[in-house]
Amino acid sequence: MQTNALITLTSDFGLDDPFVGVMKGVILSINPQANIIDLNHGITSHNIREAVFSIGMNYHFFPERTVHMVIVDPGVGSQRRPILVVTDRHYFIGPDNGVFSRIYEKEKHALKVIHITADQYFLKKNSSTFHGRDVFAPVAAWLAHGKDFQTFGNLITDFVTMDLAMPKRSNDVLKGEIIHIDKFGNAMTNISQADINDLIGMRREYTLRIFLWKKMVPLRKYYGEAKGAALHAVINSSEYLEFFINRNNAARTCNISRGDKVEVKITA
Amino acid sequence: MQTNALITLTSDFGLDDPFVGVMKGVILSINPQANIIDLNHGITSHNIREAVFSIGMNYHFFPERTVHMVIVDPGVGSQRRPILVVTDRHYFIGPDNGVFSRIYEKEKHALKVIHITADQYFLKKNSSTFHGRDVFAPVAAWLAHGKDFQTFGNLITDFVTMDLAMPKRSNDVLKGEIIHIDKFGNAMTNISQADINDLIGMRREYTLRIFLWKKMVPLRKYYGEAKGAALHAVINSSEYLEFFINRNNAARTCNISRGDKVEVKITA
Amino acid sequence: MQTNALITLTSDFGLDDPFVGVMKGVILSINPQANIIDLNHGITSHNIREAVFSIGMNYHFFPERTVHMVIVDPGVGSQRRPILVVTDRHYFIGPDNGVFSRIYEKEKHALKVIHITADQYFLKKNSSTFHGRDVFAPVAAWLAHGKDFQTFGNLITDFVTMDLAMPKRSNDVLKGEIIHIDKFGNAMTNISQADINDLIGMRREYTLRIFLWKKMVPLRKYYGEAKGAALHAVINSSEYLEFFINRNNAARTCNISRGDKVEVKITA
Repeated sequence: MQTNALITLTSDFGLDDPFVGVMKGVILSINPQANIIDLNHGITSHNIREAVFSIGMNYHFFPERTVHMVIVDPGVGSQRRPILVVTDRHYFIGPDNGVFSRIYEKEKHALKVIHITADQYFLKKNSSTFHGRDVFAPVAAWLAHGKDFQTFGNLITDFVTMDLAMPKRSNDVLKGEIIHIDKFGNAMTNISQADINDLIGMRREYTLRIFLWKKMVPLRKYYGEAKGAALHAVINSSEYLEFFINRNNAARTCNISRGDKVEVKITA
Repeated sequence: MQTNALITLTSDFGLDDPFVGVMKGVILSINPQANIIDLNHGITSHNIREAVFSIGMNYHFFPERTVHMVIVDPGVGSQRRPILVVTDRHYFIGPDNGVFSRIYEKEKHALKVIHITADQYFLKKNSSTFHGRDVFAPVAAWLAHGKDFQTFGNLITDFVTMDLAMPKRSNDVLKGEIIHIDKFGNAMTNISQADINDLIGMRREYTLRIFLWKKMVPLRKYYGEAKGAALHAVINSSEYLEFFINRNNAARTCNISRGDKVEVKITA
Repeated sequence: MQTNALITLTSDFGLDDPFVGVMKGVILSINPQANIIDLNHGITSHNIREAVFSIGMNYHFFPERTVHMVIVDPGVGSQRRPILVVTDRHYFIGPDNGVFSRIYEKEKHALKVIHITADQYFLKKNSSTFHGRDVFAPVAAWLAHGKDFQTFGNLITDFVTMDLAMPKRSNDVLKGEIIHIDKFGNAMTNISQADINDLIGMRREYTLRIFLWKKMVPLRKYYGEAKGAALHAVINSSEYLEFFINRNNAARTCNISRGDKVEVKITA
């Protein structure tokens, strides 16, 4: 007999309105034993791509059978489909707008995508503006409770994937960009440790140089290793290249924005 | 034997201070099995009326026997009474300042209001500035634990009700106002679907026109149905009339504020 | 057999990033029964002193055996030690940067400090920028699960204490400062009720006068007792002197900042 699964919530709802609390009320009305964790409600309004990276970098820290709800859903009420993504270890529930693109990429070896159509599980009074509450929360509650994923609809293969602005490699240069500014003002890029490892390849001797807007920035192992008030780079805890100022807000101080251009160059 | 009831928290405390966490500590010290849900801590400081609408629109999404704490309490420490409101399905705990006015109206068929006086349940060290922690949290913890509501004090009938600015009907016009701007910049009015249904009455053919500051705004079924950057209206997930711009912040773009005047007109 | 202990989280992570959610994922992967409470994520980035006061004023509202994680950790990745503080009733986990200075002071009668070295409990992939997730969360999960505190390392006595700017007493004057502005704009000082009691001593007749920037401010028993829009003082729910305006934002209205000077004078 399976125990109750964890449910995580990622959304652009923020925490200043009752949206998140009400989804929890719906879940707990169906499944009183559900354990619900707020993973990230700070996604910029309607920004699907930001949600792609947020869930893609963090889902694997949760236990097997966790149900991840991701509700960044500007198309709510339209023909866009509600879907349930099933992988080896986890479930994902949300709109079919590309928000699970990193999951499709990372879990392609064992991926099933279900078009959720079993509306007997939805709230009776189904709004056209809040499917997080009316559609996704009830399905998550039943799934965490142990209901088989096949109950909710049929397999599809034409699910939407988003063209993620991944870093471009040309010879000895990786070109990427800033994709997120966090609470500390640290500016994360879309260039991962793995991308840099690929760039290095079989080389045994090399020099890496990192550039933000064509300006070179020194790389450090941890924040406190950077002395003074200058901009530095680090491989952050998600294993992505990030710019920071030690004990200061780099984005504000240096005026860094999402989309700003970043390069990593290797020389022998 | 009853299981432990859910406790929800609504307040103007925000989430940048330890106020909410400390209330949870008090509850869990008394009742370690309590399941506590943050419903809404984004109420504007001291704004009782905003809390009236927030709890009034959302309490029914929670399971039977849920204990709803609502702590918007500018009169804390004064003679205002702590009360416990008992309805068919739920409990409500908070100050007697009108914050439960929508509950009184919606649940008048089966309503009991108790003046909480059983101070043996309060924290020993009772402050005069934080009854959410010292009075309401302990009472909620005991109530969720199964203690009878009659334990906490005697019935009163002279509880405070707030004169809510409800929409005014005159012949073929409903006059209301903006009551809440949400995280997305959507501007909710105090005009409900039910109010509009009353306006329509028995008519079979009619035209509804919606006005914000005397300017006509087209009505849509869902957000994505509104193309372009113009202001539109929708019946939102709480079944209230709301103004929005598709994938944009309407309140900021159009400079909409709480209190702005709204009209719904019907013509044959 | 002990039940599972509560875990509280205090940090400067805010709630707009996935940091807090991910720590919960790590804890629940190890200890699925853990009950995790957000105590305060609103600490100013890197501000250890603010965290000292926040945890020091609030830990005692939680049940016996609670594990308090306090992650304000600008030195993460450097040589600063991870520690576990054991007192009569609680556990505290965080960096050895002085963040537990108030605990050392208040619980000195029964204090053990452990240098956490048992890295078999850490996440396998240990980053140098997020020990909240990789080191402190797993240790908290195991500790709440019942593992003995001695498992995690050896006792130390040279832990770091911070020189807290405590109020200075000179004859009939207490000199302190503003240490926190809360969500309501109330401005808390570092002068406690106990400090004022000491100042009063054995006197039976006396007059207390309170000054902010040399300007006298009247003392009230509760917020609503202050009529009009003037600045007043109160002993707040943490039993510290605080400045407020009734139903208004004192810090914004009067331009009060952290560090502003406060005096309490006594005259016969």
